[in-house]
Amino acid sequence: MKKNSEKWIIQINGMIRTLVYDAINKVEEKVTLMGYVDKLRDHGKITFIDLRDRTGIIQCVGENLPKVSLQSAIEVVGKVNKRPKSMINKSINTGQVEVWIENINILSPASELPFDMGSEQLNLQLPTLLDYRTLTLRHDKISKIFKVQESLMEGFRKASIELGCTEIFTPTISASATEGGSDVFKIKYYDNDAFLVQSPQLYKQMLVPVFERVYLVSRAYRAEPSVTTRHLSESIQMDCELGFVDFNDLLDAMEYVGRETISYAVVECAGILKEYKSENISINKDIPRLKLREAQEILKGLTGVDHTNEPDLMPEEEREICKWARSERKSDFVTITHFPTKKRAFYTLPDPQDPEYSLSYDLLFRGVEILSGSQRINKYDDLEKAIIGRGMNPENFKMYLQAFKYGMPPEGGFSFGLERITMLVLGLSNVREASLFPRDMERVDFRFPAKKKKSSSKGH
Amino acid sequence: MKKNSEKWIIQINGMIRTLVYDAINKVEEKVTLMGYVDKLRDHGKITFIDLRDRTGIIQCVGENLPKVSLQSAIEVVGKVNKRPKSMINKSINTGQVEVWIENINILSPASELPFDMGSEQLNLQLPTLLDYRTLTLRHDKISKIFKVQESLMEGFRKASIELGCTEIFTPTISASATEGGSDVFKIKYYDNDAFLVQSPQLYKQMLVPVFERVYLVSRAYRAEPSVTTRHLSESIQMDCELGFVDFNDLLDAMEYVGRETISYAVVECAGILKEYKSENISINKDIPRLKLREAQEILKGLTGVDHTNEPDLMPEEEREICKWARSERKSDFVTITHFPTKKRAFYTLPDPQDPEYSLSYDLLFRGVEILSGSQRINKYDDLEKAIIGRGMNPENFKMYLQAFKYGMPPEGGFSFGLERITMLVLGLSNVREASLFPRDMERVDFRFPAKKKKSSSKGH
Repeated sequence: MKKNSEKWIIQINGMIRTLVYDAINKVEEKVTLMGYVDKLRDHGKITFIDLRDRTGIIQCVGENLPKVSLQSAIEVVGKVNKRPKSMINKSINTGQVEVWIENINILSPASELPFDMGSEQLNLQLPTLLDYRTLTLRHDKISKIFKVQESLMEGFRKASIELGCTEIFTPTISASATEGGSDVFKIKYYDNDAFLVQSPQLYKQMLVPVFERVYLVSRAYRAEPSVTTRHLSESIQMDCELGFVDFNDLLDAMEYVGRETISYAVVECAGILKEYKSENISINKDIPRLKLREAQEILKGLTGVDHTNEPDLMPEEEREICKWARSERKSDFVTITHFPTKKRAFYTLPDPQDPEYSLSYDLLFRGVEILSGSQRINKYDDLEKAIIGRGMNPENFKMYLQAFKYGMPPEGGFSFGLERITMLVLGLSNVREASLFPRDMERVDFRFPAKKKKSSSKGH
Repeated sequence: MKKNSEKWIIQINGMIRTLVYDAINKVEEKVTLMGYVDKLRDHGKITFIDLRDRTGIIQCVGENLPKVSLQSAIEVVGKVNKRPKSMINKSINTGQVEVWIENINILSPASELPFDMGSEQLNLQLPTLLDYRTLTLRHDKISKIFKVQESLMEGFRKASIELGCTEIFTPTISASATEGGSDVFKIKYYDNDAFLVQSPQLYKQMLVPVFERVYLVSRAYRAEPSVTTRHLSESIQMDCELGFVDFNDLLDAMEYVGRETISYAVVECAGILKEYKSENISINKDIPRLKLREAQEILKGLTGVDHTNEPDLMPEEEREICKWARSERKSDFVTITHFPTKKRAFYTLPDPQDPEYSLSYDLLFRGVEILSGSQRINKYDDLEKAIIGRGMNPENFKMYLQAFKYGMPPEGGFSFGLERITMLVLGLSNVREASLFPRDMERVDFRFPAKKKKSSSKGH
């Protein structure tokens, strides 16, 4: 993770502030610390306060302190003392020192907490975890989820830049519900209707003739009328799209970005992954590549059940083939290619050798699909035909088709969701835990008040 | 700008591809190039093609070539030849070499262009520029706008990371129209109504007790029922929010991020700024800081007109005070502070010394406000009072207020719009030119068909 730095600033509130991680270098010095009351042990005259700031936690001790409540924002002035060897607190990284409080200033007192925040693990049900989101996010173990998320994003940007991609910014408001399907949010847009994009797919393709290789961080909105552990109504989507490439180039690029994104976070956040008992990730540069039909043959051999005619892998088959890849090929990744053409989006290029199947691919990681993409149809006439073939109106794709009218090279790309990979890297059980403020059918910050419901199928 | 790199890939379509910028290092060698027909000069038997890829433009020459149209995607195989000194083409960066075409493969032919793309400047009216957006973006001078934009974003991230900020991802869907005002887009959200956020303001504040310092790239949606040269209905917003800081710390941080963001792009994109005759940007680390009333006094002295009772600077006054700063203080930036409390958002902290004015600030650059922010109210009771005082319902701010209930330190931050600073750095006349696919009241990709209009005041 990035070094915390305060070099742009010398004084805070007119005083030199010391960050917690830096206090261990200031033994015998007087320091000013600012942070929150993370833990509190009141022994009558003497009070112990574990003070937390963005760099760590440190124990502070004082006599006859004013009453202070957990989570209050405080400022402490005091001397840093070395603790005797026998008293070193190994549970915090500043355990070899403590601060003797000379003065404490309560900047903002906290109300009484609705639950215990002091245990190593916050043992709360998901609804409570989300109803008190601004509080539960402060818990060390939970805030670290988002340090991993930040790291994954850094890894994605780094890999995309190494690919020669230009960063672009595409709109989230669209004039028509272009990608097909009914799971689209409608907006009242002045005197007209507009829609939230299901993905930046069409826009990133339009920009291939401009920048050739692009990457972007955008939003995906899905009005799926169901509540599952894997889907959000709004999520952070990461995309790449590359021109002048063939199918093998795309597989190379997709595996490169997927692998580098995750391995960046694995290195940067090794300590956190260990806390989450999730450090055992096997990253092999040689990712197994299987056609869907080949994967199904392997599964048939393993399970005895024949699904070689199914159009996709079922969730338990995704888990099974990942287990196979880990044990047989030492890889937590598997690439599956050549899904049936009619099961993929209209812009997917059918395999010229066998048009029933398409030049599409999914990257699986730890039993779940994390990246998805394809080579695209790049000929105007074929694309128009594909749109009509799906029962859609080319008139709704006017700007998109325009890009193909004036020379579109062979191209393709892929996309993945930030919350989902965060969940998988840490082994979380619900994608909502990997979103700061998750949105789903039932909740925007808080649950909507009960109404007559049309459909709310629950399950995976 | 970032080095273009193809190190992750050796072969494209089974062949080694040479990027245009690399061809000058391959004199006498046979290369495969891929790109678009940027210019075409047909001299009967001999044809000259200027081939453009993402790294540059190179002249290719051949005899008896098949017919090829402008903007078509092509693949050229040929030998790189040094041009005689007298023939060097100084207008392109590969002008010392040319490629003798042995084979040309038309990957995707382009239809006839609706206007001339060959001139140095695309002389089109804004509606045409946007109606043919996928085509006009390919023009060298226009695509470069977005290289500058990318660079500004890199500069912003770099500065925010130096500040010790954690990158966060906040939602764009909100349960209520929380920031006040009527300019909000409403969404049909399953069985409920929801709204697109006007800014990530409330969410970034809620995360201060979690990460202390945060930065984010998000969306701002404004349903302003007017068409101006400075506003978009959807824009890319960059934000920082910092805890445990006072007003002076915030001014330091805001000026640091604003200055570093722009100076990063000024260095990285020096060539492009020169093309745009916009290289003369004066960045002085010592940015003049004026209270609104002080700025108005200076303006009164300069113009003789007394506006010292007005609640804000007018656009012509912003230009005037920037001129003053440039000539008197050698700075294209000016910071204006202490705007009237009632003119700023409800969460702005009134100046304890003079509560009619607030601890707010704007950063002006080249005559226009680019960054805006304030120290925030951090006491629960004061915040609740401020909400009620603006005629709003605290019930709609339940999650937001929760964050203040459990200890919120003194904090503040600022935000700015990516398209607007891109426009100002390049001296563009309309913010739409700085958005890949601009959205406004009248246009989402294409103009909406005419309807009875309620209000469409035009102007600045």
